[in-house]
Amino acid sequence: MTPTYSKDEFPRAAVRPAVAIRSSTISPFMVMEVLRAANARQAAGGDVLHLEIGQPSTPAPRGVIAAAAHALAADRLAYTDALGLPALREGIARWYQDRHGAVIDPRRVVVTTGSSGAFLLAFLAAFDPGDRVALAAPGYPAYRNILKSAGLVPVELSTGPETRFQPTPALLDALLAADGRDGGGGPLRGLIVASPSNPTGTMLDAMGMAALGDWCRRHGVWLISDEIYHGIEYGTVPAATALDYEGGEGAITINSFSKYFSMTGWRLGWAVVPERLVRPMECLAQNVYISPPTLSQHAAVAAFDCVEELEGHVARYRRNRDILLNLLPGAGFGRLAPADGAFFIYADISDRTDDAQAFCTRLLNETGVALTPGVDFDPVRGHHTVRISFAGAEAEMVEAARRLKAWRGSGRGSGRE
Amino acid sequence: MTPTYSKDEFPRAAVRPAVAIRSSTISPFMVMEVLRAANARQAAGGDVLHLEIGQPSTPAPRGVIAAAAHALAADRLAYTDALGLPALREGIARWYQDRHGAVIDPRRVVVTTGSSGAFLLAFLAAFDPGDRVALAAPGYPAYRNILKSAGLVPVELSTGPETRFQPTPALLDALLAADGRDGGGGPLRGLIVASPSNPTGTMLDAMGMAALGDWCRRHGVWLISDEIYHGIEYGTVPAATALDYEGGEGAITINSFSKYFSMTGWRLGWAVVPERLVRPMECLAQNVYISPPTLSQHAAVAAFDCVEELEGHVARYRRNRDILLNLLPGAGFGRLAPADGAFFIYADISDRTDDAQAFCTRLLNETGVALTPGVDFDPVRGHHTVRISFAGAEAEMVEAARRLKAWRGSGRGSGRE
Repeated sequence: MTPTYSKDEFPRAAVRPAVAIRSSTISPFMVMEVLRAANARQAAGGDVLHLEIGQPSTPAPRGVIAAAAHALAADRLAYTDALGLPALREGIARWYQDRHGAVIDPRRVVVTTGSSGAFLLAFLAAFDPGDRVALAAPGYPAYRNILKSAGLVPVELSTGPETRFQPTPALLDALLAADGRDGGGGPLRGLIVASPSNPTGTMLDAMGMAALGDWCRRHGVWLISDEIYHGIEYGTVPAATALDYEGGEGAITINSFSKYFSMTGWRLGWAVVPERLVRPMECLAQNVYISPPTLSQHAAVAAFDCVEELEGHVARYRRNRDILLNLLPGAGFGRLAPADGAFFIYADISDRTDDAQAFCTRLLNETGVALTPGVDFDPVRGHHTVRISFAGAEAEMVEAARRLKAWRGSGRGSGRE
Repeated sequence: MTPTYSKDEFPRAAVRPAVAIRSSTISPFMVMEVLRAANARQAAGGDVLHLEIGQPSTPAPRGVIAAAAHALAADRLAYTDALGLPALREGIARWYQDRHGAVIDPRRVVVTTGSSGAFLLAFLAAFDPGDRVALAAPGYPAYRNILKSAGLVPVELSTGPETRFQPTPALLDALLAADGRDGGGGPLRGLIVASPSNPTGTMLDAMGMAALGDWCRRHGVWLISDEIYHGIEYGTVPAATALDYEGGEGAITINSFSKYFSMTGWRLGWAVVPERLVRPMECLAQNVYISPPTLSQHAAVAAFDCVEELEGHVARYRRNRDILLNLLPGAGFGRLAPADGAFFIYADISDRTDDAQAFCTRLLNETGVALTPGVDFDPVRGHHTVRISFAGAEAEMVEAARRLKAWRGSGRGSGRE
């Protein structure tokens, strides 16, 4: 068959199809803009201290890299079960037993393409379009945006230092009371908690997690617990996992190999879900991404044997944290959230600027120190905050603090924009 | 702070949160059930000929594995740009120039987590909830399910051998005319085409693609072209790419490293989109999966230099196809779709059964030959069809055809269920 007209002859366009309206509601990550500016500065020969980065500065542990090299040579690397390799699901279940004494049936473990994949599958499996899901502001911006992509309505709970930036039953009660007054929207069907939190680094203690679990149980609300920073903690009591407080089978616990296990680019996470969610999430995974990356799965089986190397990273984060907590107040960053875990310090800079983005741009241009403006995490109050990451090298922290202090001292970094 | 009650004491569940209603609308892949049954048979000591599989039986090409080993040793494997590594986006653009003479700006290339990721991002960026998207039945079931996950309405165009199982302007005109009569639903905003098609293996020729492109342009409808089986073709004229027919900037071209490049478990695909979609898809990707798997991206840069090895796979598929097309009619499979490309033969078995699933189960149990029932691809008419994959080894094809013929001859495989 010969075409009746060639590709250069066919009739010209009549109607150019439009971009979706909803795509305008998905905001970009400002941290990516900061990263772009920082990289441009670096490419132009300027030096940059990367305190904007939300990922470990280290590669995967040696044991993981060795396991990957082995799988690369020995395995065909075909699709896996949508729920993940059985050996990996078993390894994850054992990890909960070793760390938390929680006995988890490996069949409840859903291996996902990053924790992002776990959130998407969990939201699609647990919620219907129009359902409302509560979450703390400040918080990780992708929660809001994945919720919106799935046709759901994020409801922000404005949190502050008085609750360690974490949701509380009182805040949830106030939300329902407000619904009673103004009719609310769709039903409140979920609550997302993150402990340790990005961007604040604050943690829920066992009592706080239990109280939220109890509130969710009483109200038939799913508790979705983002535990991606578990293991990167600086107190004496380990972070509580929602698995300890899942009475009523109403908890979805999400984690990842990206942070503690130092495997960001491997795109591997997981969810532990009640049995009745496993099959819906399996069907969704088959359709939405078929299976998580195969090589990453084989490699991650070895991750649980690399604790010594990984604890070395945590020890470095702890030294970096101590350096910054000591030096930041003298550099004009006096109002810091308690950095209980993760590798972030969230600083209130309302005494210095009303425009955190302009502040960060000027800081980068004048000192080479890259920070993340708070607007990613809290569109309203984030104009007065910055997130300071200490995932980098110790020497970088010392030098960054020195420059921040000098900038403040020079008068350029003081006063309002 | 000490908890006021321990995890064993807190109040018992009051309300168990429900699973989403929409998750019951996402059907599982029946092929996975077949695969499970086939694997169970194998684990029990039975032999299985895997003609149900939708993926190459080969690993990634040697050059890709070498590039992966190098990156594993040399790179930190952190997150990449959400749109993908610049070197990979450039390599993909060059590939279009080499294969199709199409000049593509690399900035229009969006690297994704499998073609699944490309579909999800494209649907979210191009369509709003309630929009309708037309697609052929039979077709790849994930289209329908990803559309539904994104709040969209799949509209199936019932196709048959008279149009090579492909959509046509006449079918689309008929759809709009029916809308005029019954009011339709949401606006028709998109058309998905797949050439070569899974499950039918049929292709659109250049005229067919141009005619659909023209229809979409005139109606302001996005043309989404799934070209994942490009390169696995058996005719003399290569499959048309929608990039040749994108007047009006209304085409989204999707492809993957899974099939021609034999890299399924690496979870890497791409989309070529009009410039105005790049930024929305970048923001969505940042939120929905951050970035595609990093090691896979480094490795895939080498894939375009492995054509000799990859063409060897295509030559094997061609031999397998010839064997089956010769032998299947004598084994009772006389009504076959023209296998223009991919590694599938779609067989109409309405003269043998009204229940393709039961037929496949009995066939597997009695002969060890695994086929996929058509219901995955066409919920209505698929009860009368099977998909036969020839991605395996040549000897498997010969033996499968022999067993199918013997089964038919024994009388067990004939007559209705």
